[in-house]
Amino acid sequence: MIVVQSPLHARHDGGMELHRGALVPSFESPDRVDQILRAVSGKWPCIEPRPHAEAELHTVHDPAYVEFLRTAYTRWQADGRDGSMLPSGFPARSLRQDRVPDGINGAMGYYAFDAGTPIVAGTWEAAFAAARCALTAAALVSEGARSAYALCRPPGHHAARSVYGGYCYLNNAALAAQALRDAGRARVAILDIDYHHGNGTQDIFWSRGDVHVTSIHGSPDTEYPYFLGYADETGVGEGAGCTRNFPLPRGTGWDTYAAALEEGMAGLRAFAPDALVVSLGVDAFEHDPISSFRLSSAHFADIGHRIAAAGWPTVLVQEGGYAVEDIGTNVVAVLSAFG
Amino acid sequence: MIVVQSPLHARHDGGMELHRGALVPSFESPDRVDQILRAVSGKWPCIEPRPHAEAELHTVHDPAYVEFLRTAYTRWQADGRDGSMLPSGFPARSLRQDRVPDGINGAMGYYAFDAGTPIVAGTWEAAFAAARCALTAAALVSEGARSAYALCRPPGHHAARSVYGGYCYLNNAALAAQALRDAGRARVAILDIDYHHGNGTQDIFWSRGDVHVTSIHGSPDTEYPYFLGYADETGVGEGAGCTRNFPLPRGTGWDTYAAALEEGMAGLRAFAPDALVVSLGVDAFEHDPISSFRLSSAHFADIGHRIAAAGWPTVLVQEGGYAVEDIGTNVVAVLSAFG
Repeated sequence: MIVVQSPLHARHDGGMELHRGALVPSFESPDRVDQILRAVSGKWPCIEPRPHAEAELHTVHDPAYVEFLRTAYTRWQADGRDGSMLPSGFPARSLRQDRVPDGINGAMGYYAFDAGTPIVAGTWEAAFAAARCALTAAALVSEGARSAYALCRPPGHHAARSVYGGYCYLNNAALAAQALRDAGRARVAILDIDYHHGNGTQDIFWSRGDVHVTSIHGSPDTEYPYFLGYADETGVGEGAGCTRNFPLPRGTGWDTYAAALEEGMAGLRAFAPDALVVSLGVDAFEHDPISSFRLSSAHFADIGHRIAAAGWPTVLVQEGGYAVEDIGTNVVAVLSAFG
Repeated sequence: MIVVQSPLHARHDGGMELHRGALVPSFESPDRVDQILRAVSGKWPCIEPRPHAEAELHTVHDPAYVEFLRTAYTRWQADGRDGSMLPSGFPARSLRQDRVPDGINGAMGYYAFDAGTPIVAGTWEAAFAAARCALTAAALVSEGARSAYALCRPPGHHAARSVYGGYCYLNNAALAAQALRDAGRARVAILDIDYHHGNGTQDIFWSRGDVHVTSIHGSPDTEYPYFLGYADETGVGEGAGCTRNFPLPRGTGWDTYAAALEEGMAGLRAFAPDALVVSLGVDAFEHDPISSFRLSSAHFADIGHRIAAAGWPTVLVQEGGYAVEDIGTNVVAVLSAFG
C-alpha cells in the first residue's frame, strides 16, 4: 500500500456550514487528515502527488465548472465580501437551469446544491491537490501497484460533472476511475461505502457501460443527499444496469450491512472489472456525529477483507468520516486488508 | 381604499436566514407590518380577513405542498429539533426532482429553493392569514370596490405552485388574481414592482392566457432569485406573450425605472385587463438594505399615480421592503393615488 497525500488540504479551513438550521463550523475539518496521517505513517510509505495538469480535471468535469471553482473566491472578494462563501438560492424546481447568472452569488447557487459546502480562500488549492492525490494513486495502480490510497481532503463523491455540494468540489474517485480507463483498463468498478450516497459519481457515469458504480448508504429518504441514491436508479443507455444502489435504513447494523455488501460485491464480480476504485468513507461508524449506522472498527476490517479478497487492483480514495478520534483507526482497518 | 390585515402575521417571527455567507435574523420582520399599520390607520378603514377555507389555496398551489407547509414544523419537532427550519440540500441540477423524500429534512429541501426562508412554529398560521387577506381584498374588489390593499406578511410572489423561498410560502398575489378570475373577471393583470423578480407568480401563470404577468426588477444576473426573470421569458402555449420581464441593472434610478414602468403599463393597456393585482414591494427604495435601486418616496407616489391612472379595479398586495423606518411612508405614497 502506498499513501498519497498533500499538505495543501489544510488550506481548506475555517468554513461554516448550515446544519439542521444552524450555522456551525464544518464537520469536514483539517484534523481529520491529521488523525489519518498519524495512523498510516510508519505503516506505509507516504508520498506527495505528481504535478497533474488542471486539464486532467476535464475528463470528468465541465471546464466552465472548473474555472468557476478556481476563480470563485477571488470573485467573492472582488464583490467586497470575505468569510466563507455559501449560496442562498438554487436552481431547484420551477427555476431555470439553463443559464449561469453573471454575478458571483447567482453563479455560486447555479453550481451548488446545498448550503453546507463553504468555499474559502484555500478551497481551490486544496481540492485540486486532493484531485492530484487521486490521479497519482490511479497512476501507481496503472503502473502495477496492487493498491494505493489517496488521502483526499476535501472529499469528492458528491461532486457531479458541474455541481458541488456535500463538502465535495472535485470528484476524486471519478477522476481516478477515468484515469484507470484512460490508462487502458477496459472495465473499472467503483464501490462507494461512504454513509452518504455518492450522487456525483453516479451522475458522472450514469450512461456509461465501462464504469460500474455500486453504492451502499443511508436511505436518501431520510439521509443526505436526499435527491439521488434510491434503489430504482440503475443507469441508462449503455450504462443500463451499471449503477446499483443499496439504500439502508437509519440505525442499520452489521448483519444488514454485510448482506448488502455481499450482494454488491457479487454484482461487481459479475461485471468483472480490471480495476476497482473504493470511495472510502468511514462514516458508517457507530460513533459518527452526523450518521446513524452502527458499524465498529472491527467491522471496517471485515469490509476491507471482503473487498480485498476479490483481488482487483484497487485505488482507495478517502471520502467522509467525522468521528475524528477514530477516523485513523477505521481507515487503517480497511487499508490493512490490502497489505 | 380598504386595508385588510391580520395580527396573526406576528406568529411568523424569530427566524434566521443565510445571507451572504452569514446566519442573520430575517430581514423580513414583524415590525415591517407595525410601521405600515401606523402609516395607514386613520387614513383608511382597516379590517380583518374573512374566513376563507384552506381549500381555496389549491386554486394556485398543489394540495401536497399546502399540506407540507401546514405540518412542516410539527414534523421538525417530532424529529427532535427546534429553532427555525432551514433546508441544507436542494433538488438542483443533476439531482432528482420527481420524488419527495419521506423525512422532513429531504421534504423541506424538495419544497424550497433557498436557505433564506425559515419556517418557525407560527409560519403556517401567518402565511395562511396573509393569503386570507389577499383573498378578502380580491373579494372586495370583485364586489365593486375601486381598490383594496392586502397588508400581507409573509409576502408571496416568490412562492410557486409547490415551491417556497425568498421569504414567501403562499403566493398571495396569485391567489388574489385567481380569485378575481373565479369571480368572473375574464382578464386579470398582475404588475409586480417588488425589487426582486416574482418567480413564483410567473411560474403559476406561465402557460395561461387569461392572466398577464409583468414584472420590473433587479436583473437576476446579479439579484435574487437569480434563476428566473430574464427578458427572454415571455410565456408558453396560451400564455405566450402574457409574461413580460423588465430586468434592470444594479443602481437603476428613476428615469430608467419610469421608462420601464411606462413600457410595462403600455403592455398591460394592450392586454386590457378587467382587474389588476399589484405586487407591491417597496424595496426599490434608495435606502433599502438588501436592494440597489435609487427610488425616493416621491417616486413611489409617482408610481402610484401612473398605475391608478389606468382606472382598473385594483388589488394591491404587500410584498417586500426592508427599510423598516420608511416602509410605511412608501406604501402610503403608492396607495394614496387610489383614493
